This record gives sequence, C-alpha cells and structure tokens, in this order.
Amino acid sequence: MERKEGLEIVKAQLTEHRYVHTVGVMETAIQLAKQYGADEKKAELAAIFHDYAKFRPKEEMKQIIVEEKMPPELLEYNSELWHAPVGAFLVEKEVGITDAEVLDAIKFHTSGRPGMTLLEKVIYLADYIEPGRHFPGVEEVRELAKEDLDTALIKSVQNTILFLMKKNQAVFPDTFHTYNDLITNRRID
Amino acid sequence: MERKEGLEIVKAQLTEHRYVHTVGVMETAIQLAKQYGADEKKAELAAIFHDYAKFRPKEEMKQIIVEEKMPPELLEYNSELWHAPVGAFLVEKEVGITDAEVLDAIKFHTSGRPGMTLLEKVIYLADYIEPGRHFPGVEEVRELAKEDLDTALIKSVQNTILFLMKKNQAVFPDTFHTYNDLITNRRID
Repeated sequence: MERKEGLEIVKAQLTEHRYVHTVGVMETAIQLAKQYGADEKKAELAAIFHDYAKFRPKEEMKQIIVEEKMPPELLEYNSELWHAPVGAFLVEKEVGITDAEVLDAIKFHTSGRPGMTLLEKVIYLADYIEPGRHFPGVEEVRELAKEDLDTALIKSVQNTILFLMKKNQAVFPDTFHTYNDLITNRRID
Repeated sequence: MERKEGLEIVKAQLTEHRYVHTVGVMETAIQLAKQYGADEKKAELAAIFHDYAKFRPKEEMKQIIVEEKMPPELLEYNSELWHAPVGAFLVEKEVGITDAEVLDAIKFHTSGRPGMTLLEKVIYLADYIEPGRHFPGVEEVRELAKEDLDTALIKSVQNTILFLMKKNQAVFPDTFHTYNDLITNRRID
C-alpha cells in the first residue's frame, strides 16, 4: 500500500491531533528502520496504522477482545492497552493488511512483549519519541535512540513502569516481562 | 519454640551484623502483628528465622532449589532471592518448624507474592523497615506503616522495583505480580 493511501485511511479514524502524531511516528519509524536495518516499508506501514483503533468505543474493543479470544487479562488492565491488539485485528479485517510482522508491530506497540522483533522495537520506540511527544524523560530517550536501540527501549519501558507506579496504577504483565527480557538479553557491545 | 532458643539457633547461622538485623525484624514484626492483628508468636518465629539460609553457599542453595523442585526461574534472577525459599525449606528440615504460615512468611519475605497473607505482609515489611535499615525512602515507609499496612507495603515494593530498574537489573516476576496484586486489591477505606 502506498503511503498516501494509508494515511488517507487512518485520517478518517483519528482526531487531527492523533493524525499529526501518526505522521510523526511514521517519519521517526522510517528513520529508525534505516538506522538499525529494519524493513523501511514495513516500518512505514505499521506506523501509519498503529493507532487505527484508538478511537473505537470501549465496548466495541471489549467485544473484539472477547470474541477473538485475545488474552482476557487485557480487560483487567488499563483500557489504553486495548487499541493495540484490537487495531492489529481491525487493520487486517477492514484494511486488508496481512503481513504478520506489520500486524505484530501494531499489536505490541503499547505493551511490548518478551522477544520483540526489530520492527516491533522500532514502532514501540517511534511511538515514544516522535517529535510531537513532550513529557519528562523523552529527550533522554531520543538521545539514547541515536546510539543504541535496546538501551533507548529499556529506558522508555522503565519510564512507563515508573510513570504507572507513581500514579499507583497496575502495570500490564507483558510490560514487566518486556523489561526483564530486554535487560537479560541485551547484547553487550 | 521460645524466643531465646530460636535466637540461639539463628545466631550460629548469621554474621553479627545480620543477627542484629534479625533482632530488629523480630521486634518490628511483633509490633506490626500487634497493630494489625496478626499472630504475634508466629510473627516472632518467622522473623527470627527469616534469614536462616542467608549465608549458605550459593552452590548449596542452587542444589536445594533444583532438588526440591522450587520454581526454576529463581536461578535466572538475582541470587539474593534464593535464601528465602531455601530458608523455609531448611528451617523445616533442620530446625523442625512445621507451621505452614510461618514457613510461607519466610519463603516469600524477599519476593512477595500475589495474595500475601497478613503474616507474610508483616514479615516483608518488618524486614524492610526495622530500625537498622538506612536507605533512601525507608523513613517514608516507616511513617506509612503506622497508618496502613498495604500502603506501606505498596511503597516498599515500588521502591524495590525502582531500585532494581535504576541498576538495570531484572526484577523477579513475583515482585511485579505482588505490586499489581496489592494495587488492584487494596481495600479503599
């Protein structure tokens, strides 16, 4: 799918603010893919569609999680997590994207997972550091992303866990497992 | 078992420093048990023996974890965790303590676990705040412990996760699960 067509499709699904974010994620993802040797076209496509389901009603997302037999514990945690796996499902069903790598990058862009692929890491990180993001710690992660993908990713996952703990919110187990996995398997250069 | 006899047994297993810590945990645990309605004698006994295996050789602890079919992932994480389940095992085998509640309080005093009993919470927290402990944040947890057991416990688990993340160390999954469990099930007064 051409970039223009993809952007038109998601534009109809998003607020203006979220569309601008999506374009930022797309540009950042392409740049990270180039830098770290991921597939640039797949990075572009996954980035364009990563928030496809962001504004679906909660009830619709809940129904899809149940009917499609997604991990039921999703429903016990923050509903902010739901749009990622639901988005991967809807992008396949409604847009006809079938590339499993692209769909997984959409599916895990919020929670992460142990054993993330290069493409999944690129999308996760691009979503975190795209130029429209402004929150404490983002600049540090931007700087780390210039040097080492895993180091930047670890910092972003740590920040996410810290942010949730400061608000006394539960942390989705896959996010913890992602942290442990990255820390344990980081390549020592 | 009388306090005097218990303390004599553990004294032989510990350094002077760790023995002084153990007495501090014992006094704090009895006080917390009194305050929150846990069994004071069980709190005393669990506290006396909580670090029984602290100075066993790593190889011995590893062998016990394998032979006794304890969770094998223990071996993938910080060896500081091992003395707790190994201690519970050895305290039963070598000292003859058979009270399952006391043994569990020893077993989970470092990692915590989802669904901690009142006694387990008392020992975990006493180990964290006994008067000999000096580290950033301990005074805040001491103050919280005067008001609410779960709030103090949540803070101590958060601090532990934060401490490990700052050192870029893996966090034992049960510790994460303990945090989520406490946050999710905290009674709202």
